[in-house]
Amino acid sequence: MTAINALKPLIRTIPDYPKPGIQFRDITPLLANGDAFYQVIEHFAERYQDKGLTKIVGIEARGFIFATALAYRLKLGFVPLRKPGKLPAKTRQQSYDLEYGTDALELHDDALTATDNVLLIDDLLATGGTLIAAHKLLSDTGARIHECAFLITLNDLPGGQKLDENGIGYYTLFEF
Amino acid sequence: MTAINALKPLIRTIPDYPKPGIQFRDITPLLANGDAFYQVIEHFAERYQDKGLTKIVGIEARGFIFATALAYRLKLGFVPLRKPGKLPAKTRQQSYDLEYGTDALELHDDALTATDNVLLIDDLLATGGTLIAAHKLLSDTGARIHECAFLITLNDLPGGQKLDENGIGYYTLFEF
Repeated sequence: MTAINALKPLIRTIPDYPKPGIQFRDITPLLANGDAFYQVIEHFAERYQDKGLTKIVGIEARGFIFATALAYRLKLGFVPLRKPGKLPAKTRQQSYDLEYGTDALELHDDALTATDNVLLIDDLLATGGTLIAAHKLLSDTGARIHECAFLITLNDLPGGQKLDENGIGYYTLFEF
Repeated sequence: MTAINALKPLIRTIPDYPKPGIQFRDITPLLANGDAFYQVIEHFAERYQDKGLTKIVGIEARGFIFATALAYRLKLGFVPLRKPGKLPAKTRQQSYDLEYGTDALELHDDALTATDNVLLIDDLLATGGTLIAAHKLLSDTGARIHECAFLITLNDLPGGQKLDENGIGYYTLFEF
């Protein structure tokens, strides 16, 4: 873990973005550093390489970054969860509440079956709303969800607690 | 190339999506196949591994899929081009015309310098509008653009010709 924690300063804090009072954790400097990005994927690979996973699922758009590199590394298929209207075949949808209004995620109907054992990846765990919707969307296919993985968890937001309450296991590389 | 062409049937055609008359080329079955996705990334890696690249640039959102896996494979940094309002630090922006209205792409101002030599990746070359905007955004930083790479080029749309006219070199895995 020491090696990984040495990468934490590559996550840049942008104050007051997207609105006053919010400290935005910007992962682009870490992504721009080839050695750092490589180490992050290797770290996830070490944790997940012998777990009998069949697919890596990533949430649009930043979840794709880690899910696809890890899928390549583990020679597994990648399955995208996307915003409504982006997936062209038959989909199932799960909506979730935002601060104002609602949003939704979609999954291709034929993307997963009850024989799958998946890892669900997003870059960030904040309020947990997106993640719980994504988890339900996957669960409803009958697939087993081995775990959820994040680059970052924001500890002053209720995401971690919500996942605990819902019995959803997760792993995070960095905490803020 | 034979091995790669064997993967082409994994790209599924969805008729009349997103509107009547359009044959949508759906890459999700290829992505869901771990061996196929691995071979695609290896194919790109073989082409680009000894070209002195410093960064892989991907266009939101499907460009991320190939750009990040290849960045990991080549141990290079990844730089995202995103829709407006998604990148939190100072950005430069380039707009482009859509069938109705305009859209734009953004790049973090400090993401690239004149010493960079980048590969620009997107999943699909269609009309070329997005790609030419992306190329200009990168060129304006002074970075060298080694080439543009796509999974798919649609030959009945003018993207390839537009890139040729603009002197932009590109490579594509599959043609439809």
